[in-house]
Amino acid sequence: MKRYRNPQKETWSEICQRPVMDTTNLNELVNKVLENVRSNGDQALREYSLRFDGLDLQEFQVSQTEISAAIQTVSIELKEAIQLAKGNIERFHKKQQETILQIETTPGVVCWRESRGIEKVGLYIPGGTAPLFSTVLMLGVPAQLAGCGEIVLCTPPDKNGSVDPAILFTADLVGIKKIFKVGGAQAIAAMAYGTESIPQVYKIFGPGNQYVTKAKELVQQVGTAIDMPAGPSEVLVIADDTCEPAFVAADLLSQAEHGTDSQVILLSTSEDVIDRVMVELTAQVEQLPRKEIAVQALVKSRAVSLETMEQCFEMSNAYAPEHLILASENAEGYLRLIRNAGSVFIGNYSCESAGDYASGTNHTLPTNGYARNYSGVSLDSFVRKITFQKLSSEGIQNIGPAIECMAEAEQLFAHKNAVTLRLNSLKND
Amino acid sequence: MKRYRNPQKETWSEICQRPVMDTTNLNELVNKVLENVRSNGDQALREYSLRFDGLDLQEFQVSQTEISAAIQTVSIELKEAIQLAKGNIERFHKKQQETILQIETTPGVVCWRESRGIEKVGLYIPGGTAPLFSTVLMLGVPAQLAGCGEIVLCTPPDKNGSVDPAILFTADLVGIKKIFKVGGAQAIAAMAYGTESIPQVYKIFGPGNQYVTKAKELVQQVGTAIDMPAGPSEVLVIADDTCEPAFVAADLLSQAEHGTDSQVILLSTSEDVIDRVMVELTAQVEQLPRKEIAVQALVKSRAVSLETMEQCFEMSNAYAPEHLILASENAEGYLRLIRNAGSVFIGNYSCESAGDYASGTNHTLPTNGYARNYSGVSLDSFVRKITFQKLSSEGIQNIGPAIECMAEAEQLFAHKNAVTLRLNSLKND
Repeated sequence: MKRYRNPQKETWSEICQRPVMDTTNLNELVNKVLENVRSNGDQALREYSLRFDGLDLQEFQVSQTEISAAIQTVSIELKEAIQLAKGNIERFHKKQQETILQIETTPGVVCWRESRGIEKVGLYIPGGTAPLFSTVLMLGVPAQLAGCGEIVLCTPPDKNGSVDPAILFTADLVGIKKIFKVGGAQAIAAMAYGTESIPQVYKIFGPGNQYVTKAKELVQQVGTAIDMPAGPSEVLVIADDTCEPAFVAADLLSQAEHGTDSQVILLSTSEDVIDRVMVELTAQVEQLPRKEIAVQALVKSRAVSLETMEQCFEMSNAYAPEHLILASENAEGYLRLIRNAGSVFIGNYSCESAGDYASGTNHTLPTNGYARNYSGVSLDSFVRKITFQKLSSEGIQNIGPAIECMAEAEQLFAHKNAVTLRLNSLKND
Repeated sequence: MKRYRNPQKETWSEICQRPVMDTTNLNELVNKVLENVRSNGDQALREYSLRFDGLDLQEFQVSQTEISAAIQTVSIELKEAIQLAKGNIERFHKKQQETILQIETTPGVVCWRESRGIEKVGLYIPGGTAPLFSTVLMLGVPAQLAGCGEIVLCTPPDKNGSVDPAILFTADLVGIKKIFKVGGAQAIAAMAYGTESIPQVYKIFGPGNQYVTKAKELVQQVGTAIDMPAGPSEVLVIADDTCEPAFVAADLLSQAEHGTDSQVILLSTSEDVIDRVMVELTAQVEQLPRKEIAVQALVKSRAVSLETMEQCFEMSNAYAPEHLILASENAEGYLRLIRNAGSVFIGNYSCESAGDYASGTNHTLPTNGYARNYSGVSLDSFVRKITFQKLSSEGIQNIGPAIECMAEAEQLFAHKNAVTLRLNSLKND
């Protein structure tokens, strides 16, 4: 980690710089995949399975037999852990359901909103080395709570053409019936356009590699909504004298092990805290199976001492971290200073992995500084909020003249006339 | 309007087809504008002002003197109308503020969300023939309620270099201080990248022509959020025997006058209702100043008779209209059937222009079928909802073992270790 001691404010934007990934050269490649799937449907998916995975798949949908068999192989302990996490995620997201609130903005004019689940959604779940069944919970639970009618899940199979059992168990647990063995940009294309096997959806969720991310970006331009733009994952920890340096180091490493492009930032008012975290980092990283990845991520990472906690929060807001850990016993007094962050972990016992798996909050969060302009995934992401208005004859009489005046000033005379006709009919009554 | 009588279901998707606009050839043109503004800032904006508007602008920001002078010229009647509309829009959007709800998902694990206004937002307001001051209300009111720190407004000036007085009055009324005389794709570029005069923002809102729309689409790919994708405006009316045909015709025309690419759809269980609406349309369109535009829009429009109200709602859901008018005295019984729509107008006195101006709901709505996957603009559009979690020592003991188990199954051992260290420290206590 690169260390900075009380850096001048002019240098902050450099410190807050993220590693830049240029993905423009992916455009052409991914566009070709999209076009092929759009034109040739399942046939294109078969070609890619053969070429990239060496699999000759006739059937993409995971059968009920496969699901039942897979569920048998998941340990009781893991099943119970997933069920515990599901309960918390459900409890947290259920409270995001909006009660209908009718507001009489003017006598006779009643307005309200009602939520409707998006009718068809697609979930992309990466497979490969780390089967992210936790993401099945984070996307599947709110999709079900929102009342999304059709939920499609795509995930790449392994070399034998099988899907990870924990992914199948979790999908089954949250009630997802349509699971397809397709990964990569071609999976995004299949859900955006539909194929003979895979239903078209209106919104696509989920993380993925740079091909998946680019495909989501491209289908968004032609009508399919996506959860949010993506970039490498990151954590920023603000630690004061009341932190536990070993816990801080462990939290930094749990972000660093995600990928070589992950970034971790440590801000502290204490040089001593930073020194002690560094010692812990060096010791703990040695024990990690993914040590090589973590070490590379740490090279791009920073530890910064600042004079006050206020300055730490100011730099954190400038960085706009996906995960913000407040490693302090006095964290709660500072919450009002947080302006840009995806999810916040308060105090020494709130590790990032709690939110990644089981506290109940969603782990699909804005990365790459997008916490400045995007929220993480929530129940809101799976619904549309439709507005309703009902005007009585009294209502149109109360606001009609104002509408006529405004419509005329905007030179929209048909808009005005729609009101005038109604007002005249009431005069004649 | 093209008429269809009880069409077979196989033909519905053809009936629900929208006029297609191909804007791919705009890519290169608009990209050049973005690149020029990004590289040359104000100098590029000056070039475009001179080239497109014949204006040699030294100063883009509207001065306080200009604002004060403009406010004098707005009629008292229009000022009062705008104030009435502002009151209703404020009352409706204020109720969208979320109260903080702390949820203990497991004993010792407390999770909640807090909203934060996006720190810098940009509003684009079209000028030209119809100065859309109503859109200043629809975007400015929720931006202020959300607590957005910096609100930038760009709008094209007229041939004399002035901004429409009603736009300036409305912007001043809602407290927008930074108003710039810049329109078109170059305005979007200026807000996305920032120039010497115009601050960079994190999210851009507002309607515009195809250049503006394309520019928003392109800046979204490089990190600036936008309100939603855009397309031509549209209305769908479901009318039964209890409707007022003259009102229905007026509502269809108030959509048709928006532009030649607007589309209006009438669905009814009664041929007689359709006949009578047609007669009214023919009579009313003659009186409109924007008759030429409305007539062209009507050519692309459809009137469809169906056997049941349920079928009408089914076709409406397939179309996913921006505006849905229920021209019926019995409309409320059908609301549960609505799955895809932007905003709904209930009963014979709820004309679309009520929602366009003054009922309180937002008029920035998903067009072009995007009601399937996007909500209209609301207070939510101007905030990020940050999640928070606080685990006590009891909390991590309750959910820690589940996290360890799940992290290990996903082969993320540093994630597991962050929990193990904490659990071990508590065992030693």
